[in-house]
Amino acid sequence: MIKLIIDTTGGDNSPLANIEGSVSALNAHPDLYVIFSGDEEAIRSALAELGFDDDSRYEILHAPDVITGEDKPTDAIRLKRESSMMKGIKMLRENDDIAGMVSTGATGSLVAAATVRIGRIRGLIRPAFCPVFPTMAGTLVGVCDSGANVDCTPEQLLQFSVMGSLYMKNAFGVENPRIAMLNIGTETEKGDVLHKEAFKLIAAAHGDNFVGNMEGRDLLSGKYDIVVADGFSGNVMIKTTEGTALQLLKKIKEDIYSRGMYKFGALFMKKMFEEEKEFMNYQNYGGSVLLGTEKIIVKGHGSSNATAVRKCIEQAMTMEKNSLNDKIAERIADLYKAQA
Amino acid sequence: MIKLIIDTTGGDNSPLANIEGSVSALNAHPDLYVIFSGDEEAIRSALAELGFDDDSRYEILHAPDVITGEDKPTDAIRLKRESSMMKGIKMLRENDDIAGMVSTGATGSLVAAATVRIGRIRGLIRPAFCPVFPTMAGTLVGVCDSGANVDCTPEQLLQFSVMGSLYMKNAFGVENPRIAMLNIGTETEKGDVLHKEAFKLIAAAHGDNFVGNMEGRDLLSGKYDIVVADGFSGNVMIKTTEGTALQLLKKIKEDIYSRGMYKFGALFMKKMFEEEKEFMNYQNYGGSVLLGTEKIIVKGHGSSNATAVRKCIEQAMTMEKNSLNDKIAERIADLYKAQA
Repeated sequence: MIKLIIDTTGGDNSPLANIEGSVSALNAHPDLYVIFSGDEEAIRSALAELGFDDDSRYEILHAPDVITGEDKPTDAIRLKRESSMMKGIKMLRENDDIAGMVSTGATGSLVAAATVRIGRIRGLIRPAFCPVFPTMAGTLVGVCDSGANVDCTPEQLLQFSVMGSLYMKNAFGVENPRIAMLNIGTETEKGDVLHKEAFKLIAAAHGDNFVGNMEGRDLLSGKYDIVVADGFSGNVMIKTTEGTALQLLKKIKEDIYSRGMYKFGALFMKKMFEEEKEFMNYQNYGGSVLLGTEKIIVKGHGSSNATAVRKCIEQAMTMEKNSLNDKIAERIADLYKAQA
Repeated sequence: MIKLIIDTTGGDNSPLANIEGSVSALNAHPDLYVIFSGDEEAIRSALAELGFDDDSRYEILHAPDVITGEDKPTDAIRLKRESSMMKGIKMLRENDDIAGMVSTGATGSLVAAATVRIGRIRGLIRPAFCPVFPTMAGTLVGVCDSGANVDCTPEQLLQFSVMGSLYMKNAFGVENPRIAMLNIGTETEKGDVLHKEAFKLIAAAHGDNFVGNMEGRDLLSGKYDIVVADGFSGNVMIKTTEGTALQLLKKIKEDIYSRGMYKFGALFMKKMFEEEKEFMNYQNYGGSVLLGTEKIIVKGHGSSNATAVRKCIEQAMTMEKNSLNDKIAERIADLYKAQA
């Protein structure tokens, strides 16, 4: 049985979407057990409405408070101990039989709380955040780290490459993940001191699976399965990718309305434009994960609907079934054995 | 009279586009004098073809060699002394009456050669590269630095903010440029050590003209006139912006061909899609400049046509007429006076 905590607050559609997604996952997976963290009454009434009454499959962790995007992560950890997120993290830490937590709440607070409160995998310097994106080739590409670590060492980038590639394999079934490092050019000697040094370490650790440096322009190209980045430039890349795509689609929409002929033409293409927007909507592809903590932490998009929440839960289950964290621990230990 | 060197090689359409653009600028601006750097015979034959024979308005600097994107910048400087770019840079350095150089050649070699060979503005740590982009609001936004300095100090970011805002004012007429700093969030305390420190310096130097941190997703929003960035993440942002836009347009094109109905609708929108592509084509908005050298260096896009080259020349003329470099020198001196 896999036990997961579901944070039921903090998303645009929570608690309902979070509870509905969980019930859908419970119905599909008999080996799942859910701990709902949040307002007990709201959870009970949602479960009743959804007709789910098998109380051997779930329990409720009553938590009256909510963390929002407005809360500073350090304050949230200190001051909002009664929130569904912080109570969930505490319960996760204190119970060995709980595998992980799924949340659609504030990313900063979740990453900070999990990093501080949940133990790290042995040998790991710091956990890293890893979202996935759809590529033009129909594959997925992960970005590790995308913002949890803004000041990185070369060794941290090496660890991101180990965690990220094991993640793409054990959560999405990518057999030999093609690893690339975000840099300002594709040539070997490119970049600042950090990336020049990291390049050598990653190349030595991964051999042919490391395809070398990549540029942000190629994130969606499908040429890579996992992109290793320092948290600062990784964050710049993913926000720029998302923002540019949405702004361009918005501009096209506005331009369509500027001329009758375009408007007429667009009538035949409405569905296509909706599909482009959905394509860029990365909640459709699973949650982002925090890699490197001893427990599984999956962060669903703030606007997650029930389907997206269910996907996050299934993603956590796959990671647990494939013993991702054990594999990360082994590989990290190997690294240092080789160096010693 | 304004004397400019035009590097006639290294672009996709050179030497013809470079010479045609120069002749067009010469015809429009009686105060312009051009030194064509490149293969003398090719230049003479192009000028004859274009019917430009006023040899009091131009001269030719014969340079038989060409630098390509394949050349490593350090090698190009050392080994390709007979190239149009390196001979141009040498002549620019040795002649006080020449204001600057326009090139469509390899960016890396141009930035390296100008940084090494042309003197810096007094007080300036290192020159920075600054391209401009069209925004959704119809304005332009500059990014300084976009890749010339991969390892930056807070003080360098401060200098980029001074140069970048003076540039937007004196090359594009933006009265009070709104300055933002690329970071991983808009809040004041965001980022790594470098950006936290730089934030304070820039805020102190610019007061209300500094609007604070920005994220890469907002580059095209029109909310800022100049974005200050360390060369590493600035480079990641501009390449990601360009690449995402082009890849999305490519995907839309492919999707259009996937269904007859979309193809039919697109017939009415052909012109619009061409316009979107042109909108994202940043050569339409002037060249990128290297800010901080004692001479004006304008880098046109490699695919520049004659119109784009003429625009680069006019941009260099405007910068010279507005004494941009003198203003930068004054403001940099003021900074240190204030600190002393």
